[in-house]
Amino acid sequence: MGIDPGLTRLGLGVVEGSVGRPLTMLDVDVLRTPADLDPARRLRILADGIEERLLLHRPDAVAVERVFSQHNVRTVMGTAQVSGVAMMLAARHGIEVHLHTPSEVKAAVTGSGRADKAQVTQMVTRLLRLTEAPRPADAADALAIAICHLWRGGAQNRLAEAVAKAAGR
Amino acid sequence: MGIDPGLTRLGLGVVEGSVGRPLTMLDVDVLRTPADLDPARRLRILADGIEERLLLHRPDAVAVERVFSQHNVRTVMGTAQVSGVAMMLAARHGIEVHLHTPSEVKAAVTGSGRADKAQVTQMVTRLLRLTEAPRPADAADALAIAICHLWRGGAQNRLAEAVAKAAGR
Repeated sequence: MGIDPGLTRLGLGVVEGSVGRPLTMLDVDVLRTPADLDPARRLRILADGIEERLLLHRPDAVAVERVFSQHNVRTVMGTAQVSGVAMMLAARHGIEVHLHTPSEVKAAVTGSGRADKAQVTQMVTRLLRLTEAPRPADAADALAIAICHLWRGGAQNRLAEAVAKAAGR
Repeated sequence: MGIDPGLTRLGLGVVEGSVGRPLTMLDVDVLRTPADLDPARRLRILADGIEERLLLHRPDAVAVERVFSQHNVRTVMGTAQVSGVAMMLAARHGIEVHLHTPSEVKAAVTGSGRADKAQVTQMVTRLLRLTEAPRPADAADALAIAICHLWRGGAQNRLAEAVAKAAGR
């Protein structure tokens, strides 16, 4: 399950697959909260939506986009709060959590860490063999994060296993 | 309940009282998580500790120190994640959440928004008539946030009520 965190719009995508095999989209959704609601209630609404989908899909892993404080400070704080809630909920349900930077996600799905939103959406649509592009961009981003984790996370795990085996552990 | 959020140390203080009456400390604690644990598990440990105390004390309100991204970016992101978790949990338990800036908290307990940690600890110790200063500083800060909310939040509520009454609502 990939999560593109945000207080106003939170993208959530569930993808099944592994390196070298076709990917399948199991779910995609965007959770929204009204900007005039107090932040704690907005976080609660998002928490309930995330938890519902964690219980429904029981994903092997949750991948969350890593938040940087490069942009608007107010937005970033809200985004960090949401990502903390998502990470905590996954941990409570015994699901492993991984963070990927935006450029890791872009590079994984398009081959370039500097791809724009349109390129990411286009590649996600092609990789998941969808008839229509996922809308809005947060939905496509969440799917891209899930795909990035399936490919990168998988490769990292196999490498770690090989190293552990070689070390006789 | 006042919360001074942090991944490594989270201060938590429960104070009873109102404007113009003596304050009573009901609880003070510092939750800690090991720095080498992955962030999602650290958030989960803190969430469990916060929730335990929310259920134990059933506070009227939870006051959380507002996070700014002025300092170390990495630390701030972790702190924002923790504050998001605390806010969401309070909302889930139907408890109102308020944020106060560090300078509001300092001004409320010491009279100066630029007071240092020692002055805050000293005033908290005096206001709560404690025989020993709360340690570490995160514990004193959490109590200061709780006191700030009792005084500021209370005053704001009474003002809002008076305005509503005057408007015939």
